[in-house]
Amino acid sequence: TTRIPVTVAHGDGIGPEIMAATLQVLEATGAPLALETIEIGEAVFHRGHSAGIAPEAWDSLRRTKVFLKAPITTPQGGGYKSLNVTVRKTLGLFANVRPCVAYAPFVATRHAGMDVVIVRENEEDLYAGIEHRQTDEVVQCLKLISRPGTERLIRYAFEYARAHARSKVSCFTKDNIMKLTDGLFHKVFEEVAADYPDLDHEHLIVDIGAARLADTPEAFDVVVLPNLYGDILSDVAAQVAGSVGLAGSANIGEHAAMFEAIHGSAPRLAGKDVANPSGLMLAAVQMLVHVGLPQHAGALHNAWLTTIEDGIHTRDVFTPGTSKRQVGTQAFAHA
Amino acid sequence: TTRIPVTVAHGDGIGPEIMAATLQVLEATGAPLALETIEIGEAVFHRGHSAGIAPEAWDSLRRTKVFLKAPITTPQGGGYKSLNVTVRKTLGLFANVRPCVAYAPFVATRHAGMDVVIVRENEEDLYAGIEHRQTDEVVQCLKLISRPGTERLIRYAFEYARAHARSKVSCFTKDNIMKLTDGLFHKVFEEVAADYPDLDHEHLIVDIGAARLADTPEAFDVVVLPNLYGDILSDVAAQVAGSVGLAGSANIGEHAAMFEAIHGSAPRLAGKDVANPSGLMLAAVQMLVHVGLPQHAGALHNAWLTTIEDGIHTRDVFTPGTSKRQVGTQAFAHA
Ligand SMILES: CC(C)[C@H](C(=O)O)[C@@H](O)C(=O)O
Ligand SMILES: CC(C)[C@H](C(=O)O)[C@@H](O)C(=O)O
Repeated sequence: TTRIPVTVAHGDGIGPEIMAATLQVLEATGAPLALETIEIGEAVFHRGHSAGIAPEAWDSLRRTKVFLKAPITTPQGGGYKSLNVTVRKTLGLFANVRPCVAYAPFVATRHAGMDVVIVRENEEDLYAGIEHRQTDEVVQCLKLISRPGTERLIRYAFEYARAHARSKVSCFTKDNIMKLTDGLFHKVFEEVAADYPDLDHEHLIVDIGAARLADTPEAFDVVVLPNLYGDILSDVAAQVAGSVGLAGSANIGEHAAMFEAIHGSAPRLAGKDVANPSGLMLAAVQMLVHVGLPQHAGALHNAWLTTIEDGIHTRDVFTPGTSKRQVGTQAFAHA
Repeated sequence: TTRIPVTVAHGDGIGPEIMAATLQVLEATGAPLALETIEIGEAVFHRGHSAGIAPEAWDSLRRTKVFLKAPITTPQGGGYKSLNVTVRKTLGLFANVRPCVAYAPFVATRHAGMDVVIVRENEEDLYAGIEHRQTDEVVQCLKLISRPGTERLIRYAFEYARAHARSKVSCFTKDNIMKLTDGLFHKVFEEVAADYPDLDHEHLIVDIGAARLADTPEAFDVVVLPNLYGDILSDVAAQVAGSVGLAGSANIGEHAAMFEAIHGSAPRLAGKDVANPSGLMLAAVQMLVHVGLPQHAGALHNAWLTTIEDGIHTRDVFTPGTSKRQVGTQAFAHA
């Protein structure tokens, strides 16, 4: 069989440990992947590449078009650009898909039954990163919303909902204040929704939408959001489901895709074999589906679920009484 | 005794009912107030005033400098401006103080012991409302952060924390992406914090800060936030404390102040005697403190607490088993 090329980056902090654990379980599925390793993160920043990625790494990404990425640490101070944002924009990864699922009763949660997928716009909004200093005391940042970018994203969300037999798509904006920008997002949402009469849809002002998502996440199904609200509310949703440490994400473009955990590189936990590799493992499940290996994806997902259901938990989600055995990163991967 | 002049507006939707209830309990405290009533909201919009407030109403506000305001309904469609934003900016109400408190075991909450005060910047950020259409398909909104605006707000938050014997001030921004704007907010936070060595302080990236606030609000005390994050996260905090219907807010300026519930005008509940007047009543408590009537404030606060602790609850917070009697708006005020 031909192997499917995948670019892999081990990142910083806990990155190398959770990537090692993830590659181990990926290999155990027998998925026919040909891995190419690139270097990203702190060391690359310090070699003078402002986005933490070297020019030759792009060659690999352009060739494989599939990127399994561990978290990195961006150095403090000026002159650095976010690697995530750079990769998302360069490869045109317009949709960021973040399933936030409760695993009750195996992982402690106040919201058993929660199963929300956040579909976040991934290139526009304040992430365009256009800022300027008007005077010494006044700074501004441009928030950008475009019709093509919004329409593509929202259509993706409705198609995703249909393909995954989900029944409702919710959208949150602040269009009572930002009538042009968030207003456009809301308008396009209503237009696209009209093409999917088989699916329910609703729009909420983002303040009350966020409050309900935090308090009653069981009431939501697919939620489509502009970039910054999506960034904030996917962390909220993942955390109230159980932990941000349990959520993976798929950054989807027309010609490429990137898969990563939603959490950061947690430098303080690095090298201690305590990090939870679940976020990256579940991102790898999304990746296997994306490259057309649903059976391998299912095998990995089931192995992960069984381990969680067996109460074999890393420290961060270990709950006395519910959990059975506290393990390190490597032992979790082995289990 | 001289009476303290206060401007009152009854608003739209459930506004008139919750204002009637609030004025009834205010009167029962014997607070020496001289109320002036102005008209705001839908009817005023339809008379052609784009912000829902007539010119003569400003005379009252400029004279009394104290505004007790019920929620209003902004008509759908173009050409209307937010009354809240207009009043906040016109009167220079730079700080929006929103206590989010759990009333366990009397009101159902997953976070007994939660007692968070959100201090939200109230004039800048994307609320500057400067938007433009670049092409038919591309729109932009300007986010503005100024050093004087930020410094005044953050200093207010630390002074508030000290005056209320609180021990920690937290700040959330997204300065890993918005290095100039959110970067300035974060920088000023650290500078001002250095003047308050008696108080703990911490900064979190807003995504993970929001996740923790939703999941572990007990870990927070005073939280100071830019305008839009503050809008979203004060609704989240109030809701996980029990209900957005239980939170009041004080919009504080150097020369004037406005007090209101944090919820909206809920037109569908209007005229049914079911609305919960608690948010506006607790805003009235904040107002009495502000005008120098702490004893009357205490009396009203205690009366409200006793009613809640007696299990006399409006429909929205009524919980079988915990609550004792379900009452309407008027009966709640009477109790
Ligand atoms: C690291 C950061 C730039 C990134 C973002 O804000 O998108 C992260 O928080 C995420 O959610 O993937
Ligand atoms: C009504 C709206 C303009 C207002 C805001 O966004 O500030 C409200 O949500 C609030 O929080 O007071």
